[in-house]
Amino acid sequence: MIMTDQSRRVRLVAVPEGLPKETDFLVEEHAAPECPLDGLLVKTRYLSVDPYLRGRIAGKKTYVDPIPVGNVMESGCVGEVVASRNGEFRVGEMVAGLWAWQDYVGVDAGKVQRIDAAEAPVSTALGILGMPGMTAYFGFTELCLPKAGETLVVSGAAGAVGSAVGQIAKILGCHVVGVAGTAEKVAYLKSLGFDGAVNYRTDKPYGETLAALCPNGIDCYFDNVGGEMTDAVLGLMNTRGRVAVCGQIASYNDRKEDIGHRPYTDILVKQLRVEGFIVSRWGARFPEGRKQMAAWLKAGLLRYEETVYKGLESAPRAFIGLFAGENTGKALVEL
Amino acid sequence: MIMTDQSRRVRLVAVPEGLPKETDFLVEEHAAPECPLDGLLVKTRYLSVDPYLRGRIAGKKTYVDPIPVGNVMESGCVGEVVASRNGEFRVGEMVAGLWAWQDYVGVDAGKVQRIDAAEAPVSTALGILGMPGMTAYFGFTELCLPKAGETLVVSGAAGAVGSAVGQIAKILGCHVVGVAGTAEKVAYLKSLGFDGAVNYRTDKPYGETLAALCPNGIDCYFDNVGGEMTDAVLGLMNTRGRVAVCGQIASYNDRKEDIGHRPYTDILVKQLRVEGFIVSRWGARFPEGRKQMAAWLKAGLLRYEETVYKGLESAPRAFIGLFAGENTGKALVEL
Repeated sequence: MIMTDQSRRVRLVAVPEGLPKETDFLVEEHAAPECPLDGLLVKTRYLSVDPYLRGRIAGKKTYVDPIPVGNVMESGCVGEVVASRNGEFRVGEMVAGLWAWQDYVGVDAGKVQRIDAAEAPVSTALGILGMPGMTAYFGFTELCLPKAGETLVVSGAAGAVGSAVGQIAKILGCHVVGVAGTAEKVAYLKSLGFDGAVNYRTDKPYGETLAALCPNGIDCYFDNVGGEMTDAVLGLMNTRGRVAVCGQIASYNDRKEDIGHRPYTDILVKQLRVEGFIVSRWGARFPEGRKQMAAWLKAGLLRYEETVYKGLESAPRAFIGLFAGENTGKALVEL
Repeated sequence: MIMTDQSRRVRLVAVPEGLPKETDFLVEEHAAPECPLDGLLVKTRYLSVDPYLRGRIAGKKTYVDPIPVGNVMESGCVGEVVASRNGEFRVGEMVAGLWAWQDYVGVDAGKVQRIDAAEAPVSTALGILGMPGMTAYFGFTELCLPKAGETLVVSGAAGAVGSAVGQIAKILGCHVVGVAGTAEKVAYLKSLGFDGAVNYRTDKPYGETLAALCPNGIDCYFDNVGGEMTDAVLGLMNTRGRVAVCGQIASYNDRKEDIGHRPYTDILVKQLRVEGFIVSRWGARFPEGRKQMAAWLKAGLLRYEETVYKGLESAPRAFIGLFAGENTGKALVEL
């Protein structure tokens, strides 16, 4: 059994006003946890930073339980079992779960999943084979109901979810246009086989840019971002188009109301269906989703990128980077 | 065979700017039509004025074919066969269909439906048993997916569609709150058994008014109106709530963009489904809808009001009245 008496953790010390700052978090040493009765002591290898976490530190109840000021941050993590008081897990196994941003953490064995490092790199449990991959797979197929030959626009397209959505759409025979925020990301989307890519910082007006890239209109919109791009997409949707609202990162840090184009006339006239979702609604079907995504991955039909920050102390910066559009693919912190 | 050589008609003579005016229409005499080969000569008894007609005279293509300036207005009508050159119809029978706003009109026998004056007043073919009734029945049950005990808010609640939606919801066991624009309409909604009614002209702020009348939040929203009331309703929707977008009469006469609260954060966080519809998508199921509505009508579970304008020459005023909130129930012109 590996023993340790030194561990660091990242605590939330202030509710961020607008864009989170590094000083909203504190990296500090703490007494290393012991292995809990019937549980595991895990050494964190990767922690995931995701846009939805902004809602958990907003100082109010949203669709996810808030992390109160003073508490240790938590998110999806991968780690190695360094001590076990549970018969199901052995020291040295890799597990994934939701736990605190700490070097070492005591976890309930019932709340983690064993992962097979031989099948795919363990970090994929936080990305293409984890929550972001399931978000892409179920959110897109179940709510956008794509058909071959239809046109998809996906925003946040270079991110972990968006890049998977666009690739799944290509596998299913769609015309795919991605929206991202840098020339490098646009090039990345093209390298993934996207039919078109929009740089939202430069390719204005959005309506004209999108119309040129979507000559047959837009049937499916998978939205991670919101804002004016969404206004433009709705204007180009075809009759009976489907919109999956996965994220609204453009407004996560806003303190004011999201004022813009009310979409109801487009929704009415074109009989659109717009649905928001949290991926947990398909939780019981995750094994099916993982199996399909793993098969596509193995067949070389799906690729993924990771932006890896090094060291627990970089976690606040990695998280803040999500809102600056710094990352391509899955943003991770490697401890 | 009744012969006539005098008939009047209503022509569109200008594309309305904003709210339609009587001078956008011209009531004039014209040579009475003859009975077409294989067809019918019909004397119009009732013509229907409906909000969707605003889109047909907007001078551009919307989801309904435009009526060009110079053409005779048309909409759903009921009339009596006064001459027949078709073996399926006899003189004296009542028929319903889409035809021109004229005293006399020649129609294709394949494009009208016989109506049974013994079953219900013939005007119901334009209301509770016609397009507005089908809009209420299918739009509400198919898109709002109501369950007993859930809360519905319906806007335009004293209108032909809204009053039917609210009563259907009561039959299905919902808590029903209607939104209308006068004290008389509010009283009418209560007389129909609505649990609550909001006068949108006086009961502000909307959010507080609605919250008081919907103590368990809002599960279903059937929207005929749009605008700020919709912003307030979205803020009070429960998780997995359903919104049917049937109309947006608040903005039909606007020449500017509909700017307001972008709903996507509510849609995301509460996993709402918002869908627009045109009732024709359920056209093949209208017999089923008519049968159910007629049964509820016969059982005394459904009631309807009509606001009847007299004379073909009142058709423009009747139509304009839709946007002034003048009518309770179905607005009709009786010739």
